[in-house]
Amino acid sequence: MNTNKIKHIGVFTSGGDSPGMNAALYAIAKSAEVNDIKVSGFLKGYEGLIDGDLIPLKSHELKKITQKGGTILKTARSKRFLELEGRKKALQTLKTNNIDALIAIGGDGTFKGLLAFSEICDIPFIGIPGTIDNDISGTDYTLGFDSAVNTAIENIDKIKDTAESHNRVFIVEVMGRDSGYIAIHSGLMVGADSILIPESGKDFIYLLDKVKNYDSEDAFLVVVSEGDEIGAELVSSKIKEVKPNVDLRITKLGHVQRGGNPSALDRMLGIRLGVAAVKTILQGKKNVMVGILNNQLHLTSFKEVVKQHQVNNELYELLELFGK
Amino acid sequence: MNTNKIKHIGVFTSGGDSPGMNAALYAIAKSAEVNDIKVSGFLKGYEGLIDGDLIPLKSHELKKITQKGGTILKTARSKRFLELEGRKKALQTLKTNNIDALIAIGGDGTFKGLLAFSEICDIPFIGIPGTIDNDISGTDYTLGFDSAVNTAIENIDKIKDTAESHNRVFIVEVMGRDSGYIAIHSGLMVGADSILIPESGKDFIYLLDKVKNYDSEDAFLVVVSEGDEIGAELVSSKIKEVKPNVDLRITKLGHVQRGGNPSALDRMLGIRLGVAAVKTILQGKKNVMVGILNNQLHLTSFKEVVKQHQVNNELYELLELFGK
Amino acid sequence: MNTNKIKHIGVFTSGGDSPGMNAALYAIAKSAEVNDIKVSGFLKGYEGLIDGDLIPLKSHELKKITQKGGTILKTARSKRFLELEGRKKALQTLKTNNIDALIAIGGDGTFKGLLAFSEICDIPFIGIPGTIDNDISGTDYTLGFDSAVNTAIENIDKIKDTAESHNRVFIVEVMGRDSGYIAIHSGLMVGADSILIPESGKDFIYLLDKVKNYDSEDAFLVVVSEGDEIGAELVSSKIKEVKPNVDLRITKLGHVQRGGNPSALDRMLGIRLGVAAVKTILQGKKNVMVGILNNQLHLTSFKEVVKQHQVNNELYELLELFGK
Amino acid sequence: MNTNKIKHIGVFTSGGDSPGMNAALYAIAKSAEVNDIKVSGFLKGYEGLIDGDLIPLKSHELKKITQKGGTILKTARSKRFLELEGRKKALQTLKTNNIDALIAIGGDGTFKGLLAFSEICDIPFIGIPGTIDNDISGTDYTLGFDSAVNTAIENIDKIKDTAESHNRVFIVEVMGRDSGYIAIHSGLMVGADSILIPESGKDFIYLLDKVKNYDSEDAFLVVVSEGDEIGAELVSSKIKEVKPNVDLRITKLGHVQRGGNPSALDRMLGIRLGVAAVKTILQGKKNVMVGILNNQLHLTSFKEVVKQHQVNNELYELLELFGK
Repeated sequence: MNTNKIKHIGVFTSGGDSPGMNAALYAIAKSAEVNDIKVSGFLKGYEGLIDGDLIPLKSHELKKITQKGGTILKTARSKRFLELEGRKKALQTLKTNNIDALIAIGGDGTFKGLLAFSEICDIPFIGIPGTIDNDISGTDYTLGFDSAVNTAIENIDKIKDTAESHNRVFIVEVMGRDSGYIAIHSGLMVGADSILIPESGKDFIYLLDKVKNYDSEDAFLVVVSEGDEIGAELVSSKIKEVKPNVDLRITKLGHVQRGGNPSALDRMLGIRLGVAAVKTILQGKKNVMVGILNNQLHLTSFKEVVKQHQVNNELYELLELFGK
Repeated sequence: MNTNKIKHIGVFTSGGDSPGMNAALYAIAKSAEVNDIKVSGFLKGYEGLIDGDLIPLKSHELKKITQKGGTILKTARSKRFLELEGRKKALQTLKTNNIDALIAIGGDGTFKGLLAFSEICDIPFIGIPGTIDNDISGTDYTLGFDSAVNTAIENIDKIKDTAESHNRVFIVEVMGRDSGYIAIHSGLMVGADSILIPESGKDFIYLLDKVKNYDSEDAFLVVVSEGDEIGAELVSSKIKEVKPNVDLRITKLGHVQRGGNPSALDRMLGIRLGVAAVKTILQGKKNVMVGILNNQLHLTSFKEVVKQHQVNNELYELLELFGK
Repeated sequence: MNTNKIKHIGVFTSGGDSPGMNAALYAIAKSAEVNDIKVSGFLKGYEGLIDGDLIPLKSHELKKITQKGGTILKTARSKRFLELEGRKKALQTLKTNNIDALIAIGGDGTFKGLLAFSEICDIPFIGIPGTIDNDISGTDYTLGFDSAVNTAIENIDKIKDTAESHNRVFIVEVMGRDSGYIAIHSGLMVGADSILIPESGKDFIYLLDKVKNYDSEDAFLVVVSEGDEIGAELVSSKIKEVKPNVDLRITKLGHVQRGGNPSALDRMLGIRLGVAAVKTILQGKKNVMVGILNNQLHLTSFKEVVKQHQVNNELYELLELFGK
Repeated sequence: MNTNKIKHIGVFTSGGDSPGMNAALYAIAKSAEVNDIKVSGFLKGYEGLIDGDLIPLKSHELKKITQKGGTILKTARSKRFLELEGRKKALQTLKTNNIDALIAIGGDGTFKGLLAFSEICDIPFIGIPGTIDNDISGTDYTLGFDSAVNTAIENIDKIKDTAESHNRVFIVEVMGRDSGYIAIHSGLMVGADSILIPESGKDFIYLLDKVKNYDSEDAFLVVVSEGDEIGAELVSSKIKEVKPNVDLRITKLGHVQRGGNPSALDRMLGIRLGVAAVKTILQGKKNVMVGILNNQLHLTSFKEVVKQHQVNNELYELLELFGK
């Protein structure tokens, strides 16, 4: 089956860590082993590639940590790799260690790095989308998104207990950078009274109408995405303008959304994408990201991968229906 | 928008309960309310339909229990509804209460019941697939499957702690009736050394080969589906034939897989399918099950809904790769 | 057994909600029922007492929600009860409803209210300590503390995944008002590199020494208590003084610590204290708080209950050993 | 401070694994390090002692796994150590590695082994009680019990969802060998309708009375301890004698109760007992188990440690009140 003379695959994780990365490493190692391919992991993303910092990966050991959050390969952002000098050092590392193919788990920035690297290095590069923000084209889910949402809703469920016990307004800020994907999902799932996302802009009319009629005889729960032009404090100040004496609390879930044991979906996604990455290498492909689109394996060339808001029409309809 | 003169929708849950049913009820109520439609819930499945046992459903109350497992409408299997006599009483209930459309959340048996009922009652019937076994055609996921798998892997993770501390063989039996879908998924996710499913029959060759070489210097984890021709005891006796003195333990996860707070995916699925059910009624359709196929809303006529093993080629490949 | 002619007990929850309150209500109802005593619950703390807003409590229903966080009786702070006028109305409510004894679940402020009320009302008042801060004398644990710490460490465990993946400094702020009890406990349990509490004042010497030597080759985790003179921002600015370019993140756990299903310890504590409260009434006692001190039931007169820092010598030693 | 010339402490875990063992190892290492003492861990209990199989333990590494269930030192039962021959080899291991003191985490059998060993080896032996069954005298809690109960109730909560959805009888069997301690605690916490423990013998009168009156209009939940003379099947057959057609299900929680991340209480207990063990060595004591009795550190000589049922009068009263 292994007609491509691939003997040694390198893998690294880059950008923000996300739950499911270790499950993907397990799948890569296992898939490679049955094809008599050795796997090495570079530490701290591109930094380990530059510095030649690598460890052997064995499925026998990795099967024990499929449930572990974060990434055992560690991750980092690398300024040095942005320079040609850094990429040349990375190339040297690959040659020194006889690496025949490279798999990177990360976000769109990671894949841009590979694209630049491909100008001086022609071994196959394969990308696996890993970010909790689910903002990458070419895949329905990125690794870590489902875990992040599960963590968000478990914590918001706890806040609901308190909000309902006190008949209080709670504003919960969730992650997502400029994307409201986590906010819409978690807001719908917890039965929020209002959901605010960057994509909708500063449209507070519906929220404020609802708040005006709020009689403090129940909880009132707002889920809002973090963002440059939005966020918990802004929502709070808007509410207080129309209802100055309201009993209101803010909680920002923050980095807890990024860690923790991967959910079932993320473990399976890690396994499917890890297997697909090795298979794609063996098929002779290069410079593509593997994804799951409409429940099918899908390849996207690095050039076409873009940061993308996944808030589609169905989600807008749901937001309209439930969150306004 | 509501041109169909639908004024009052009835809903019930039937068959085994599954996490996400309450989230679906919330979505149905909310969708109906914005269309000025009243919603009533029949208690205990078809039994409540026969006996005229119903309660009003309001989204304002239901938003508080989107996170609750089971079904607040309760569920039951009904022998009486299998008889024409029972169905006639149910028809009378619908007339008495001016029910214009009926939504049922349940499995293939539930939909068969609706099909029989449609012979004497011509209001729209819509089905939502709810079962942890994920064994219904026309949808990628049934309501409750993702939660069941999450519960399974959280518990198997705990068992791994003990198995690794003792260098012990553990056989974990998971649910699935005759389907190995939960077993494959959970087995892959926890890094099991062997996964056995009914679809593969009694093929123990790979397992026994592995066990023969097992040197008790690590955990050895088997995940097996319950089934008529398979199960933990059979696997145990097979292993002991080739390795009589092995330190082996069995755990059957049992009904814990059926309950618990719904996962993120199941809450979202409940919301999407609940909204879709109301929308489908308003579009004038009848006798169809709403599902999500390849990430898109998909309708399947009750006549075409079948109990189906979802173990597809990709899963068989993964089973071959990881679980043998 | 019931020689005290107690026929009807009232109960309410007051101050901040805390996990375990519903389990205590269950135990009160059950204990009362076997003694042929009726139980009613006043809603929203003292507010319900003033307004005569009460519901019957039955153990048959309450057994279903022992696992529910918050309080089904709701809670509130009451300005009106601070006035004699309010207390007179509350007295009238008790008379109108033939309440023979009153149980309050809350903090030291709640018990002060009862003490003031006892000047015009001489039926037995019994207190149950309920607050996540564990800052009440006369009991080793207050209802909710153990749940809050469990929630804190589960979330900090998630943050550790990310901190270790990035070799990053993380400052996690936990609750506790002016008490470092939650911070010490959770900080020790997660293996924090530094733990800062209000009781130790602004002593940053040890932290800053450690940070100076921190080489970014690992995670560095600080757990700090919220407080007027302490908190995550202050710690962050101190660290940046000695290490300006450090990769540092802040997470404030906030209100998630207050909600959620009660832990095993809190459910048991609720049951033990609920049973004890009814028993204490039947023994003819009044104006006392029931607690568990050194694993034994212990009564403290309301006059002697004080807000108390529970950071004892053993904890200071542990803080010295692990957290500096 | 370290006047006892202790330079090197050995530690091992023995008997069944239990959550909190790793936290205890962290505390032992940290306490030892500040006293300039080296710590080594023997693998697989007494087996590693016999075979000289040991690894260095550093608090810097162990702080990362305070949340991990099981034991990183692995555990096993050792037949060889029951023979003098085995103990002599263990003695040789201690001499070869210059071990000055030995800490064992395990149950009463482990401590009996140390007592036998003390006849030929006079360095200090200290025991830490680690077992989920909480059946050891001299301590209120053993390491792992609180975690096991938390796991039990989380799973029984899930089963309640299903039981309530179906108005069904559920019998849940929990662990405890011959002790009903886990059963009483978890049964009370989940609001069980009946709780059966070995200590009460085969007294089914109350249960069967209740079941006779059970009208299938609600869930009926029985929590029963595993045991030679008791267990889920026996309870099931008794119920079916008086109510043949009842809708009844059995779930045995099994080994999931033994693993998983340690609860807050168990992590703290591990830390307190680990610190106490090192301190006790430095105080020149030997052949004692450290425990927490009535919230205070308590030493019990190995000779006096007995397997003990902890079901005390208060628990019997609660059982009488809630579980019959």
